[in-house]
Amino acid sequence: MSDTNQFEIERLGASQYESPLKLSTTKGDHLFNFVSETDRLVFDLSLEQYNHCLNTGTTPICMEQAGPRQHIFFESNKTTAAIVTCGGLCPGINNVIRGVVMALHYFYGVKRIIGIPYGYEGLNPAKGHGFVELTPEKVRDIHQFGGTFLGSSRGAQDVGVMVDTLQENHVDMLFAIGGDGTLKGVNALGEEISRRNAEISVVGIPKTIDNDIDLIDESFGFETAFDVASPILRDAHNEATGAYNGISIIKLMGRDSGFIAASAALAMPVVNFVLVPEMNFGLEGENGFLKILEQRLLQKKHAVIVVAEGAGQQLFEHRQEIKDASGNIKHEDIGVFLKEKIAAYFKGKETPVTIKYIDPSYIVRCAPANSSDSVYCSRLAYHAVHGAMAGKTKFVASKVNNKYVYVPISEVTKKRKKINLEGEFWFSVLQSTGQPFSLG
Amino acid sequence: MSDTNQFEIERLGASQYESPLKLSTTKGDHLFNFVSETDRLVFDLSLEQYNHCLNTGTTPICMEQAGPRQHIFFESNKTTAAIVTCGGLCPGINNVIRGVVMALHYFYGVKRIIGIPYGYEGLNPAKGHGFVELTPEKVRDIHQFGGTFLGSSRGAQDVGVMVDTLQENHVDMLFAIGGDGTLKGVNALGEEISRRNAEISVVGIPKTIDNDIDLIDESFGFETAFDVASPILRDAHNEATGAYNGISIIKLMGRDSGFIAASAALAMPVVNFVLVPEMNFGLEGENGFLKILEQRLLQKKHAVIVVAEGAGQQLFEHRQEIKDASGNIKHEDIGVFLKEKIAAYFKGKETPVTIKYIDPSYIVRCAPANSSDSVYCSRLAYHAVHGAMAGKTKFVASKVNNKYVYVPISEVTKKRKKINLEGEFWFSVLQSTGQPFSLG
Amino acid sequence: MSDTNQFEIERLGASQYESPLKLSTTKGDHLFNFVSETDRLVFDLSLEQYNHCLNTGTTPICMEQAGPRQHIFFESNKTTAAIVTCGGLCPGINNVIRGVVMALHYFYGVKRIIGIPYGYEGLNPAKGHGFVELTPEKVRDIHQFGGTFLGSSRGAQDVGVMVDTLQENHVDMLFAIGGDGTLKGVNALGEEISRRNAEISVVGIPKTIDNDIDLIDESFGFETAFDVASPILRDAHNEATGAYNGISIIKLMGRDSGFIAASAALAMPVVNFVLVPEMNFGLEGENGFLKILEQRLLQKKHAVIVVAEGAGQQLFEHRQEIKDASGNIKHEDIGVFLKEKIAAYFKGKETPVTIKYIDPSYIVRCAPANSSDSVYCSRLAYHAVHGAMAGKTKFVASKVNNKYVYVPISEVTKKRKKINLEGEFWFSVLQSTGQPFSLG
Amino acid sequence: MSDTNQFEIERLGASQYESPLKLSTTKGDHLFNFVSETDRLVFDLSLEQYNHCLNTGTTPICMEQAGPRQHIFFESNKTTAAIVTCGGLCPGINNVIRGVVMALHYFYGVKRIIGIPYGYEGLNPAKGHGFVELTPEKVRDIHQFGGTFLGSSRGAQDVGVMVDTLQENHVDMLFAIGGDGTLKGVNALGEEISRRNAEISVVGIPKTIDNDIDLIDESFGFETAFDVASPILRDAHNEATGAYNGISIIKLMGRDSGFIAASAALAMPVVNFVLVPEMNFGLEGENGFLKILEQRLLQKKHAVIVVAEGAGQQLFEHRQEIKDASGNIKHEDIGVFLKEKIAAYFKGKETPVTIKYIDPSYIVRCAPANSSDSVYCSRLAYHAVHGAMAGKTKFVASKVNNKYVYVPISEVTKKRKKINLEGEFWFSVLQSTGQPFSLG
Repeated sequence: MSDTNQFEIERLGASQYESPLKLSTTKGDHLFNFVSETDRLVFDLSLEQYNHCLNTGTTPICMEQAGPRQHIFFESNKTTAAIVTCGGLCPGINNVIRGVVMALHYFYGVKRIIGIPYGYEGLNPAKGHGFVELTPEKVRDIHQFGGTFLGSSRGAQDVGVMVDTLQENHVDMLFAIGGDGTLKGVNALGEEISRRNAEISVVGIPKTIDNDIDLIDESFGFETAFDVASPILRDAHNEATGAYNGISIIKLMGRDSGFIAASAALAMPVVNFVLVPEMNFGLEGENGFLKILEQRLLQKKHAVIVVAEGAGQQLFEHRQEIKDASGNIKHEDIGVFLKEKIAAYFKGKETPVTIKYIDPSYIVRCAPANSSDSVYCSRLAYHAVHGAMAGKTKFVASKVNNKYVYVPISEVTKKRKKINLEGEFWFSVLQSTGQPFSLG
Repeated sequence: MSDTNQFEIERLGASQYESPLKLSTTKGDHLFNFVSETDRLVFDLSLEQYNHCLNTGTTPICMEQAGPRQHIFFESNKTTAAIVTCGGLCPGINNVIRGVVMALHYFYGVKRIIGIPYGYEGLNPAKGHGFVELTPEKVRDIHQFGGTFLGSSRGAQDVGVMVDTLQENHVDMLFAIGGDGTLKGVNALGEEISRRNAEISVVGIPKTIDNDIDLIDESFGFETAFDVASPILRDAHNEATGAYNGISIIKLMGRDSGFIAASAALAMPVVNFVLVPEMNFGLEGENGFLKILEQRLLQKKHAVIVVAEGAGQQLFEHRQEIKDASGNIKHEDIGVFLKEKIAAYFKGKETPVTIKYIDPSYIVRCAPANSSDSVYCSRLAYHAVHGAMAGKTKFVASKVNNKYVYVPISEVTKKRKKINLEGEFWFSVLQSTGQPFSLG
Repeated sequence: MSDTNQFEIERLGASQYESPLKLSTTKGDHLFNFVSETDRLVFDLSLEQYNHCLNTGTTPICMEQAGPRQHIFFESNKTTAAIVTCGGLCPGINNVIRGVVMALHYFYGVKRIIGIPYGYEGLNPAKGHGFVELTPEKVRDIHQFGGTFLGSSRGAQDVGVMVDTLQENHVDMLFAIGGDGTLKGVNALGEEISRRNAEISVVGIPKTIDNDIDLIDESFGFETAFDVASPILRDAHNEATGAYNGISIIKLMGRDSGFIAASAALAMPVVNFVLVPEMNFGLEGENGFLKILEQRLLQKKHAVIVVAEGAGQQLFEHRQEIKDASGNIKHEDIGVFLKEKIAAYFKGKETPVTIKYIDPSYIVRCAPANSSDSVYCSRLAYHAVHGAMAGKTKFVASKVNNKYVYVPISEVTKKRKKINLEGEFWFSVLQSTGQPFSLG
Repeated sequence: MSDTNQFEIERLGASQYESPLKLSTTKGDHLFNFVSETDRLVFDLSLEQYNHCLNTGTTPICMEQAGPRQHIFFESNKTTAAIVTCGGLCPGINNVIRGVVMALHYFYGVKRIIGIPYGYEGLNPAKGHGFVELTPEKVRDIHQFGGTFLGSSRGAQDVGVMVDTLQENHVDMLFAIGGDGTLKGVNALGEEISRRNAEISVVGIPKTIDNDIDLIDESFGFETAFDVASPILRDAHNEATGAYNGISIIKLMGRDSGFIAASAALAMPVVNFVLVPEMNFGLEGENGFLKILEQRLLQKKHAVIVVAEGAGQQLFEHRQEIKDASGNIKHEDIGVFLKEKIAAYFKGKETPVTIKYIDPSYIVRCAPANSSDSVYCSRLAYHAVHGAMAGKTKFVASKVNNKYVYVPISEVTKKRKKINLEGEFWFSVLQSTGQPFSLG
């Protein structure tokens, strides 16, 4: 990682207009300063990396600092913006929509803001969804509700058709709120726009309840997700202690990354085992999960288990044939699978247990944003707007090392972020649960 | 219903001790008055019933007013009390335990209070659970937590063995917190105690999250139950509107009675259909649920359905054979069944729909009591203690017509309370949802 | 109280129209039955009172059962309704507004519903507030917010002017949501309307966060009020224990009646003293509050005191002159007064104490309704509409003995409801706090 | 800022014991690695600063990376630890106490953990508070409650006396949870310990609800603080819109720094004006706050104002004499002062306004930690323990640039952190409220 240009943001062209924002260019006047196009922040904070740069004469990897630019690309009062929300729900989407509309309207005087209904489907005229005109009045209260005011959908639409729609409607900038797939999609739109030499900025605001977008500190909605899950764990613990050898199993979101499960367990330290997709664990044998669970019950008469939905996929692999034959897709659900395995194990041992299975899923997904996420969503939205007005394209607005930056979409979608099993976060989870460092 | 004695409470014997409570026996002194053993409250408030009594010269059905008696049966500082909690969890159990302990200790100076662990199992020495000594210090904070501090279990134990345990431990009064089965169980204990001419008072405090105990206004925990369910419905509505033809199905508790489903829907008026066990509905045909749902989607593009777990059992009957052959018990789950039926119906019509299925179950069951229930639980506990100290037995403490009363266990367990489909409550639900008066 | 007619509701005239509601008139058909105009419910449940009536042949005091009538007074699709909200805020106002609009629109097909802005001021054209047209769409989400969608104001307006406004705008029915003053005001409107032989129904829906409306079980918003106050008490307890001799004083609403203070203390049993307007207590002397508090601190090193805003007014009376001279109105605040008295007392004893004073006031008043209140508000609203459509006037819709009834406004405004110091409720509070039965 | 040593942590001596933690020293084995004593993180992320260092060959300012060391100073099973909590309450204190106890007990096998009651007073035997033995069992549930399990006090005690107490009780390490004063105090203890050549590690965990500890990202409890304040602002907005020209003034904590006020306003974007101590604003004149407020009311008929408790001190200065003469200290309260000024202004203009004043203070301070803070508190506690076991002293465990680090207490107490009026955070607040960049 020594090529500084790696994280440079593409721009539609030279910024020829003066920003309508009445900000400052000098320090000490108690007025916010425009961010310079050359402001960069170092990505890797380790002294080791500094010494490496010093020794090799290389420039460190940097990211563009987010914020309003003094010169902007679009003539703001003639600009048309569009917003689309795609994929599964996540707390905070409405806060971002609201923030983008407010920033466009009040800071830049953008007159026309189009809401694209039902995700990328809304950019395909064949779907017949139409558009929604967005105004401050319309979005004023939406931040208090979960879900998405615009509706969402999953899956892709034809890139050419979507760019046609943007062009036919004279859209100058598209804000796409979505996860990995959505971001790749908006990047594809950006590439098609480049090919057509069109001047449309495409901006991503990373949305993934799993917090698995690479490079960035955290995706919005994630703090709310484990904040909502946390009292459910507290109460699940009460379910567990409410029965002799009571076992509560809570399945939380996390297809490829166990951040929600791990964070919720850390937030509500009544959890004895967290199972995440990043870890390889076995059920059987002396160090297997079932034996360890048995020892726990012997000592404490209850146990609380949090399992991420994508955990333990390795356990299914050798069952492939059975699954195909029976056509029973139920067993791919790790929560239900675990419940059955545990029940069978203790039945075999003639040990009475009471198992409660809890799957909060949508209860977490469609909750309104908590305060931390509300703050974060507004600031993300403002930065996204500032970047788009400056003519940047194919970038996401996000936070890295606790600072707001712009990062190329292509960089954050290279791979999914996962819990580093050797990192401080996972170690803190293990410290909190007291579970063995490895299982099975 | 013209026999006044019907609701009379059995007593262990004459009350020979003066209550240690420093209360009053005269009005106007700003001090609470002891409740007289002859204070009764009329059960049926209708003027029609009054006229009937007037015309026939009969006494109306009455209930004993709850509260402290001037003369009590037990010598309070030599009394041993025991508390047991049975069956599924429900918000407020810990509040009741706490209230009983506080009342026994502080009002009556009872020195020894035994906590029976894990339900009726704890009264069977063979289970080896031992006892827990209960003190004000130990239960001081438990009201802030869901679940039961004592643990619970389901199912019965041998009545003789349990009475043996009570006698061997010199228990003078047993408080049993539980539902229909528990109450029948405690009544059986009371009958065995009578047969042995023992002087042990047995008291029930009705606990059922389904709110299906007959005669009484409401069981504790029920208000919390729909209070916890209500924001889940709000967010489920956001899930539904977040997709084109989005359908959210929320399954709530209610085996035989749909009170939680109906109350939650009334509390959060974003629900379009409530399906409860009390109603007979069909899926197919012009007035069937699926057709009505389709019409709703055509108009509004989303729908929220709340279904009680015991609803629609009639729909399974003709599927008996299929079920037996496949051994697939999954289909007895009305929520999943409905989800599949709806999916199949719209697939057949080639109408795209997005269905989200939400089953909050334990999230509701193990929540801590809300404020209304906390108030209710404390008062129930106090009244239960006053009744037991007065030597009453085989009764429940509860609230009827918004007044605290004692009712024989045998009366409240005759049948389960159900939603009256011709009553004002169900009509208010229909008004709120706007669903047709009958389906199918 | 032996005149049955006492609680009869006045009617504008004979009900000549068939209700548009498709309800039933027979039992057993699983359809809600119209409520008969002669359905009455006995008010006093005591067997003593019942027997007295039976023995003397007098009819007991009864209330009209609420609900839809088969024959109604207004031609529903030609009806104009108006809604006004007056006085201080209280949780649930928006739920009632929403319920009234939904019931008028969907059940009866009322086409024109006028929202009167800013209380009775909105009925005075001189104030220039205009009207708001109310539709289902407009009020759809308002139940999720505290406050009042229509705005409110305190104080009276000229009755003649207000009736002029109603008549000029062809209003057929006015729903007034407000407290004691508002209800008296709406009754005055009703009397003026009678004098003019106009056919306008006026309906009150009792709103008072203090729960001090006479005769009725509870006013809406009250359950939410102590539900919101309850965690504040929990945390205040943590403030108290967080310091050596820590004392938390929480002032809660309750001008003449201490229901909120008492209920919140009962809901969160960490409170050691509740001081309410109904009780006469002294600070000084051996049995005075300060001495008792000192004993508590000696034993437990902390104390939590809840005081209703109207408590202890007797303590100010003999200070009248000092107050006049200094002009310091601050000392009429019992909370601040108590804080200063306590501080001075312990300073005099050279006992270190740490006092925290908490006044949640508006935090309680403007909270959104909790689930119990949401259910209650909807049902109140529906019943108010059914009563108005039937041509009843000068009545409130409310709940008495846990049943929905109509009561003449003149009856519920005769006096304010207060805590009965000899009643079961206050006794349960004393049992919960453990405070002496009398102070000073 | 070019002296790397500036942020180096002092150590009691060489680490001679092997850590009992079974961690790794190699990457790739899926086991957390011990943190090396030489791991450092660059403080200033700007490329400008980085390049400056690279060009001049100077080492950038760095901080020590927090985490467990392979070699530790104390023989863990013979170690005695003590915990003290000082100053005002803040959400999360109990989580930190719990985390420290759990880490000492379970990770390092520390047998004796002393809880010092009531802050530094507890280290002064003359106060007679005694000690509390802390065990996992005792602290198991305390994280669910606000306040501090140990009690707190304000103010200093004699340093010599306190070190005497530590030595007499063979304390090896002291964890002090507190704000600026506490941290300076613990540093003074550390210096006295050095003078005595004693081997006691003193560790600070920065606690300040105002978030005004310098250098660090955020102090624990701060996220909870504005999370608790946020719905209060939402409801205050409903109070404001509930009256014609309704004005809600909410005073939030923030003596010298307005972070809570600003963050809460950003989290709940219904706020029109945020007034913080960092800004200089005037009330009078064309650009004064009162005039701007008047314009707002003309347009929108309501306004929500959030004021930090330390804001507007400049407004009191020229009133000094008046204040002295009257002795009325009330006017030093900016909230009440503002309320009176606004009332007087509009009275002068004969404009009717309704002002509601809300001071949530302790409601915020004694709330339990939310999930983000719970996670943060546990991790802070773990890192504090790891640092202490390694023999580091006079340091705080905290988070900088989103990474856990150790920083010398002397560095974080040099000055208080304030909102940078030229920074991105304040600009985002101004964007959210829409208030003018300067007032008066």
